[in-house]
Amino acid sequence: MKLRYQNSYQTVPLQQVRIKDTFWTKYRKLVKDTVIPYQWEALNDRIKDAEPSFAIRNFKIAAGRIEGEFGGMVFQDSDVAKWLEAVGYSLSIQEDPDLEKTADEVIDLVVEAQHEDGYLNTYYTIKEPGKRWTNLYECHEMYCAGHMIEAAVAYYRSTGKRKLLDAMCRFADHIEERFGVEPGKIRGYDGHQEIELALIKLYQVTKNEKYLKLSQFFIDERGKDPHFFVEEWEERGKTTHWGGGIIPAPKYPTYNQAHVPVREQKEAVGHSVRAVYMYSAMADLVKFTNDESLYEACNRLWKNMINKQMYITGGIGSTYQGEAFTFDYDLPNDTNYAETCASIGLIFFAQRMLQLEAKGEYADAMEKALYNNVIAGMSVDGKHYFYVNPLEVLPEASEKDPGKRHVKPVRQKWYGCSCCPPNVARLIASLGEYIYTKNEDTLFTHLYIGSETNVTLAQGKVNLVMDSEYEWNGKVQISVNPEQTCSFTLAYRVPGWSSGVKFAVNGQEINPEIVDGYAYIHRQWHKGDQVELQMDIESHRLYAHPEVRANAGKTVLQRGPFVYCLEEADNGKTLGSIMLPAGALLMDRFDPLILDGVVIIEADAVKEEKSDWEQTLYRKKQKVLEQKRIKAIPYYAWGNREPGEMSVWIRERQ
Amino acid sequence: MKLRYQNSYQTVPLQQVRIKDTFWTKYRKLVKDTVIPYQWEALNDRIKDAEPSFAIRNFKIAAGRIEGEFGGMVFQDSDVAKWLEAVGYSLSIQEDPDLEKTADEVIDLVVEAQHEDGYLNTYYTIKEPGKRWTNLYECHEMYCAGHMIEAAVAYYRSTGKRKLLDAMCRFADHIEERFGVEPGKIRGYDGHQEIELALIKLYQVTKNEKYLKLSQFFIDERGKDPHFFVEEWEERGKTTHWGGGIIPAPKYPTYNQAHVPVREQKEAVGHSVRAVYMYSAMADLVKFTNDESLYEACNRLWKNMINKQMYITGGIGSTYQGEAFTFDYDLPNDTNYAETCASIGLIFFAQRMLQLEAKGEYADAMEKALYNNVIAGMSVDGKHYFYVNPLEVLPEASEKDPGKRHVKPVRQKWYGCSCCPPNVARLIASLGEYIYTKNEDTLFTHLYIGSETNVTLAQGKVNLVMDSEYEWNGKVQISVNPEQTCSFTLAYRVPGWSSGVKFAVNGQEINPEIVDGYAYIHRQWHKGDQVELQMDIESHRLYAHPEVRANAGKTVLQRGPFVYCLEEADNGKTLGSIMLPAGALLMDRFDPLILDGVVIIEADAVKEEKSDWEQTLYRKKQKVLEQKRIKAIPYYAWGNREPGEMSVWIRERQ
Repeated sequence: MKLRYQNSYQTVPLQQVRIKDTFWTKYRKLVKDTVIPYQWEALNDRIKDAEPSFAIRNFKIAAGRIEGEFGGMVFQDSDVAKWLEAVGYSLSIQEDPDLEKTADEVIDLVVEAQHEDGYLNTYYTIKEPGKRWTNLYECHEMYCAGHMIEAAVAYYRSTGKRKLLDAMCRFADHIEERFGVEPGKIRGYDGHQEIELALIKLYQVTKNEKYLKLSQFFIDERGKDPHFFVEEWEERGKTTHWGGGIIPAPKYPTYNQAHVPVREQKEAVGHSVRAVYMYSAMADLVKFTNDESLYEACNRLWKNMINKQMYITGGIGSTYQGEAFTFDYDLPNDTNYAETCASIGLIFFAQRMLQLEAKGEYADAMEKALYNNVIAGMSVDGKHYFYVNPLEVLPEASEKDPGKRHVKPVRQKWYGCSCCPPNVARLIASLGEYIYTKNEDTLFTHLYIGSETNVTLAQGKVNLVMDSEYEWNGKVQISVNPEQTCSFTLAYRVPGWSSGVKFAVNGQEINPEIVDGYAYIHRQWHKGDQVELQMDIESHRLYAHPEVRANAGKTVLQRGPFVYCLEEADNGKTLGSIMLPAGALLMDRFDPLILDGVVIIEADAVKEEKSDWEQTLYRKKQKVLEQKRIKAIPYYAWGNREPGEMSVWIRERQ
Repeated sequence: MKLRYQNSYQTVPLQQVRIKDTFWTKYRKLVKDTVIPYQWEALNDRIKDAEPSFAIRNFKIAAGRIEGEFGGMVFQDSDVAKWLEAVGYSLSIQEDPDLEKTADEVIDLVVEAQHEDGYLNTYYTIKEPGKRWTNLYECHEMYCAGHMIEAAVAYYRSTGKRKLLDAMCRFADHIEERFGVEPGKIRGYDGHQEIELALIKLYQVTKNEKYLKLSQFFIDERGKDPHFFVEEWEERGKTTHWGGGIIPAPKYPTYNQAHVPVREQKEAVGHSVRAVYMYSAMADLVKFTNDESLYEACNRLWKNMINKQMYITGGIGSTYQGEAFTFDYDLPNDTNYAETCASIGLIFFAQRMLQLEAKGEYADAMEKALYNNVIAGMSVDGKHYFYVNPLEVLPEASEKDPGKRHVKPVRQKWYGCSCCPPNVARLIASLGEYIYTKNEDTLFTHLYIGSETNVTLAQGKVNLVMDSEYEWNGKVQISVNPEQTCSFTLAYRVPGWSSGVKFAVNGQEINPEIVDGYAYIHRQWHKGDQVELQMDIESHRLYAHPEVRANAGKTVLQRGPFVYCLEEADNGKTLGSIMLPAGALLMDRFDPLILDGVVIIEADAVKEEKSDWEQTLYRKKQKVLEQKRIKAIPYYAWGNREPGEMSVWIRERQ
């Protein structure tokens, strides 16, 4: 029987990809020079006027170095883990003895806080000793474990140092002794998925199948009847971590994607970060266990999320209540969540699906999330962040409508619950892992990020230098340098947004076969061969499915990988009263004054007059229109000038 | 100095107006024959599958007739009061010995539950004896008192029976002994305004100025520094009624309109029912105290509310969080509150402003709220109610979006917190009081509700018989029957929605002077004179101010006093994908099959095709349009067929 997917694709490790890109190098520099040091200050509670983190302090208390009370959220440990993970990636890219020394010291501290039996969690060590594993539903013990495992793997891979890795193996061993189907073990799983994907990374680096099986156990067990969260809740006296009182039974919680077993899940539901972390682990398991029923679930959940529940910016999570998915086509622009972390999780999921299937839809969504929702999450100074990435903002609403208090018109310094900033850092620091996948004889390019890369195919080693002006000019040039002339395939993604891509090899135009969004160029490659790609990068409009009520009658501007938006700074107030005529020409030009320079789109639109309205709220006379030149900027660049209105979707006049 | 208003207008008492109207008689019959009996069953917890009320039971416990625990909300007493008030009005209209006997028994029970010193509140009697007047911020003691006072006045006016009135005078006396500026008294006021307007009714019926002054004290004291709610909160140990824990200080609570003194309030803020009950009392006080600064506040708050914060259906309250106003032009259609009670309070306020000024804007808003938001609150069977009156409904959203759970697509049987049903009942039962005001020589007609009325002007007694086909045909005919031929003025409101009104007296067309929305017909009137009014009742479109983002690009259909809406039952799903071309003809016809028969509006519109979309969520190709005949029904009639989508605002294709 033929599998519906191939699982022969591998990522090209971070260590083999050296990014040098006009667009991304500044982000990577920002992460290295600003974000990682700034977050270190934050973890140590040294950012003025920001909510304290308590994260390092908690480890010091747990390690017995100082005395004090636990501070912050129950999952505060994970911020240290994500920081360490980002440091790990960063050290892969560039040596930094001072940073490495700091990280080693943090690792010493973390290991000091670990118990004899391998257990590690500062909350339970400091605040509720003896209560460990009694509230997996709410208390994130395995979530924190998972992040520290990811950190250990990243740090080991870049530095070769095993201290944290060994410690995390001991922790994973401890968990494996306590959890499983065997008699005496707990048949449970965490309320916040994360350890599942982390254990697979641990398996990949240690080759110890125990970790793969433990991950599989957590995925298989989830959502089964009798329900673990209910049994656990009864056992601990029906209490909740949040306030301590008695709560009703957590029956079939969609919030945690534990409402039914994962293979029976048909739609993306619940807390969106939890969802995509889980889907990522599921896709990983397909790769390593060839479980077709799990693949079917991944495929179904992917399609539902991407085709029914994803914002055009690559954001997911339509409501702040539970930071969650709601239902098909429910994509409100001004009350959404679209958490930065959730889009990062979507990228994780896409990257794993690309290891099962070479389909452009995965890389298209990955790119969409990366270039829009994710980088919008961070300010140009690397010190201010959005959790929530709205598609429409009215500052007065954020202030006066309680249903929009979560929508911040200005990026914040640091959050008490600070998952997003270190998540952005670790993604950008590990971006090299998202550019390529390969199988025996084909190298797939998913993202056009300028870089020098060394890969080994069956036919031999190949060096590739990609020069990219992808973002603003749609132009990419690759020097292909096989160690010896040999024949293999280079497969290039044809972006979903592009009406066409021109390919040339050594200056000769070619027409490669395009299958599932990839152009396959198979030939004998000689050292110095040049591949050129020119995407059709014309500004264009997009429309949403008629069932998306929030976008009825509206259009969105896109150019290259970027979705555009209108800001008050360029277009004045009352953005909702602007209409773009269906036939209006979209004029783009480079504007060096916005951020470090972006391509803006201008068009002749109309705007409804306010001056003839006086005091009435409703009237019979149609609105009077005036001419209005509008100017749109890439969404990721919004909110970096004076605070004001913002809108991604623009009304269209037909 | 000339006052900016005249305060010489009086309402025509209920007892002098006998309604006999094609549209309203069925509602009044419904209230008398169904709503009042049904609510009596509800107050006695005899409605199957509905949340129990506990209201009568609480009084029985407080009276010592039975034993038990207090049930329901802290303000549950008010439901009994509102029911009694409705019974009072109902008995004014038509004798009903059985109902009167039941009411007398309830009054006996209420008075039995009253304390020796006049205090009455079953919550504090049963559950927290000794704690009375310790949490006015949250516990509604005076709110309940106010409703029982209103009931007492209504019952006394219709039956002449003083038992409840005397009891409520004792209660008011007790309150007056405890509250005031004098040393030893509490300088406080209730968290939920209501007693202020009730005390003025008590003053009107008893002529005891003490009650007027007490009302004035509550209004004057509100929002002053040092803040009463903070002082009270400190005194009771900073606790909250809701759950018992410690809460932060209730500083400058806009929710309760106690953020600044009332004369400094510039915008309608906070809980909308509280707001309009307070504004009503303020307008009453202007009438009886000639306080110009208070008039200025009323005028300002009225204008803000009507011109910046009112739904086209006469609903107020843009958010369910706090059931509150938000900010100017923030009028979301699908997450709003627009509580039935709030529109009733708006009508109270308008009726009082009409006693200060004869301006059509007050009656226009009163009519809008009455014919749309208010009667939409009740089903045609009188047994199902909406609290929340949305302008756009998608049943799936109500189910799956936590931010829309308050938006019910189907009217509910009864609510645990059941303020709205008895409020509708008392308004409809007292509707006769809203039709007219008069001064010495002019009778103003605000609402065209068919009725026979006897009024006394300076020139003598006049009988008027109004035959109205106002709602569907815009036609009104009045027989004017002065006891003796004499000259006076009849002033008729020219509805804001009408492009013109034709007037005739005894078949002769006349062109009366129109001032501030009233046509003044001054002449010698003879018995049997006939006045005829024919409004231009053509279906038309309305547009919202360009700053109302929710209605950008949309239009609404109106005919006569009714705002129209589209329902799924007539137009299929995905109402947001319908567009009404700007030039499309609006065709109206009477449809006897909807409710008891309504005029519907049809038009040739277009609808976006879904069939050519396959699985994509976003695409470059514009949506394809198909022809679609749409059918709109009056908003008040929505939700009486199978549950489905509903939308008031329709996208317009320009």
